[in-house]
Amino acid sequence: MRINRKRLEDAFETLGRIGETPKGGLTRLALTDEDKRARDQMVAWMKEAGLKVSVDQMGNIFGERAGTEWLPPMMMGSHVDSVPTGGKYDGQLGVLCTLEVIRSLNNHGLRTRHPVTLAIFTNEEGARFQPAMIASGVMAGKIALEDAYNARDRNGIRLVDELERIGYLGSEPCLPRPLRAYLELHIEQGPFLEEEGLSVGVVEGIVGISWSRLTLEGVQDHAGPTPMRIRHDALVAAADVVRAVRAIPGQMSPEMVATVGRLDVSPNITNAIPGRIVMSVDVRDPKDEHVTRALGMLDQAVKDAAMREGVSYELEHYWRVPPTPFHPEVVDAVERAAKSLGTRHRRILSGAGHDAQYMAAICPTGMIFVPSRNGRSHCEEEFTPMDDIEHGANTLLLAALELARPA
Amino acid sequence: MRINRKRLEDAFETLGRIGETPKGGLTRLALTDEDKRARDQMVAWMKEAGLKVSVDQMGNIFGERAGTEWLPPMMMGSHVDSVPTGGKYDGQLGVLCTLEVIRSLNNHGLRTRHPVTLAIFTNEEGARFQPAMIASGVMAGKIALEDAYNARDRNGIRLVDELERIGYLGSEPCLPRPLRAYLELHIEQGPFLEEEGLSVGVVEGIVGISWSRLTLEGVQDHAGPTPMRIRHDALVAAADVVRAVRAIPGQMSPEMVATVGRLDVSPNITNAIPGRIVMSVDVRDPKDEHVTRALGMLDQAVKDAAMREGVSYELEHYWRVPPTPFHPEVVDAVERAAKSLGTRHRRILSGAGHDAQYMAAICPTGMIFVPSRNGRSHCEEEFTPMDDIEHGANTLLLAALELARPA
Repeated sequence: MRINRKRLEDAFETLGRIGETPKGGLTRLALTDEDKRARDQMVAWMKEAGLKVSVDQMGNIFGERAGTEWLPPMMMGSHVDSVPTGGKYDGQLGVLCTLEVIRSLNNHGLRTRHPVTLAIFTNEEGARFQPAMIASGVMAGKIALEDAYNARDRNGIRLVDELERIGYLGSEPCLPRPLRAYLELHIEQGPFLEEEGLSVGVVEGIVGISWSRLTLEGVQDHAGPTPMRIRHDALVAAADVVRAVRAIPGQMSPEMVATVGRLDVSPNITNAIPGRIVMSVDVRDPKDEHVTRALGMLDQAVKDAAMREGVSYELEHYWRVPPTPFHPEVVDAVERAAKSLGTRHRRILSGAGHDAQYMAAICPTGMIFVPSRNGRSHCEEEFTPMDDIEHGANTLLLAALELARPA
Repeated sequence: MRINRKRLEDAFETLGRIGETPKGGLTRLALTDEDKRARDQMVAWMKEAGLKVSVDQMGNIFGERAGTEWLPPMMMGSHVDSVPTGGKYDGQLGVLCTLEVIRSLNNHGLRTRHPVTLAIFTNEEGARFQPAMIASGVMAGKIALEDAYNARDRNGIRLVDELERIGYLGSEPCLPRPLRAYLELHIEQGPFLEEEGLSVGVVEGIVGISWSRLTLEGVQDHAGPTPMRIRHDALVAAADVVRAVRAIPGQMSPEMVATVGRLDVSPNITNAIPGRIVMSVDVRDPKDEHVTRALGMLDQAVKDAAMREGVSYELEHYWRVPPTPFHPEVVDAVERAAKSLGTRHRRILSGAGHDAQYMAAICPTGMIFVPSRNGRSHCEEEFTPMDDIEHGANTLLLAALELARPA
């Protein structure tokens, strides 16, 4: 049994038009009108496929295909939100491959003992509401529902109000429940599979991730008549921190990455000395103790930069996820599926966070990666060849079938 | 004859309420509703003082007190727009001191041979529409009227459309015309007068100013799975440029200043490697050849930073004003006035651009500075003691009287 490549391509094309950018990328921020339209399309397809659709308190959407026995469901899925000017593969590929797996089961009239459930998680990216993966975080009991509801976007709009506005504030409790397993297909977002000519990555786990927020307070002043000797320029201190963050991984481990992705200057005009900077620091490593040591180095670098420039600061390490090993049973099932298909594959770690990270706290969890051209993602150039997608989707199909147990 | 301190204070308080921030500063961007209200208030006061009010094609407002002879007017003034979260002294102090000078002349029934004109220039700050001092620039023939009309703010709104919207698109041509002199009172915006315990700066001229715009194009990618070795991070290159800009004055002259005031990151989210940076560089020095050499150093620093990080760039030195010496006749008149009042004063250079810079191309021009507490301006903490303001306003009165010649 194999998935239907043409049907998968068609669905990808249709869904990809919702929030499409002129350059063929995607801007579909969580809980915007575009997100709503993508959700509506998915719900229509899920109903068409005979799934029982429900929505929980966090707007997570579930479509269940009944099993032959009263057993916990085998869940698969991902998300349909994107970063601004992101790509069409991150998130929705996993959702559409799961839909295709279910359609294929239907076509072949194949029943499973466990129900099979398609899941679409709210606000995975964290581009609009922080933190990322907020809805699976609530489901896993790691984030309080109230905190998630009160998360605000840059315009001060609350998550719960947007859920309600787009009609996806469901009534089902967002809580852990018995699940056979959770399996998510996703693009690698890194260069390794492509560099090595592989189609499928058998994901063994996710690296540890830390997010910090740094506020530097200097003295806003006129850029003309203020001599260099009396300046306290928050941007100069920030530049030192950007350089320090870039240097930390080289002193720690070849697998560590560290990034300043966000930096807001105030008042941000040509002829004013920047008085205030708010910036982010993202640190990741397969080893939790490496992350801890990197944060210590960051603390010191910020302290030094602030002292040099005579600015004050607040540094908050506000989000931390330890490395997540996936469940051997699921990892092995994925590996067996890839092998039985003759797909070129290898075991790999995920450098990106995914909803699978939180799901691993609830049930046996695993992921399947397909390659990213030039390792690129979160950009309009994001691309995965259809041949690799087909290999990935078939791997998902076979692994899911094994875990959900054919009736 | 002296100005009326209480009346000046009252006017300052009234005008300062329009666009006032919670912390007592001012946000009154050019051609916003706040700017319109401030203009309306000024026009009402000008009419009350018997001035003939006119508005030109750039929205510059003029209020003329007739002279006893058919002679070119003695012009004084400044601006009423502010930077975001700026202060209450930058600009409107000069406008209000001029109004007070005219009110004092009225009170004393004192006629002058030359007319005396209060001028309020549009968009001096350049915070909303670039470049700064756009309206005096048009008047001096240095900026084409059409270019000024097509200047757009960050939301793409054109200057001319905002002029029309707030009702200040006048019909009078914005062209050079015969003027006896132009004299502008302004806060120093630097630390020198306060440090030396002086009340008045006799401004001899304005330093040379250059504004550049740098765009760095790296590769936007996911901050997690993208190894450090394949990154092209536009913000890392930008940080190098910020450091280089900070270092340039130290290698050039103690009077040089260099600032990165604006820096916009794209896509500006925590988990994406910055793909694109747009930033400003502001360089100032009393000597034009110093500015030229600094721009050469900037060119090299940008090239080096871009090469190190493997990003492409565009660097545009889009605005340049050479140092402006003021007219000896006006400078001497200001100095004589300060001396005759017994005011502690000294000659000084302006590090900031002012409309006086363009006016110097049209007629004999000078400026009067009053101190800025801690040298600070373009911020809510901007402050000048009332005693110093009184000294400055009286200096303005006596200098203007000498130049406009009592009838």
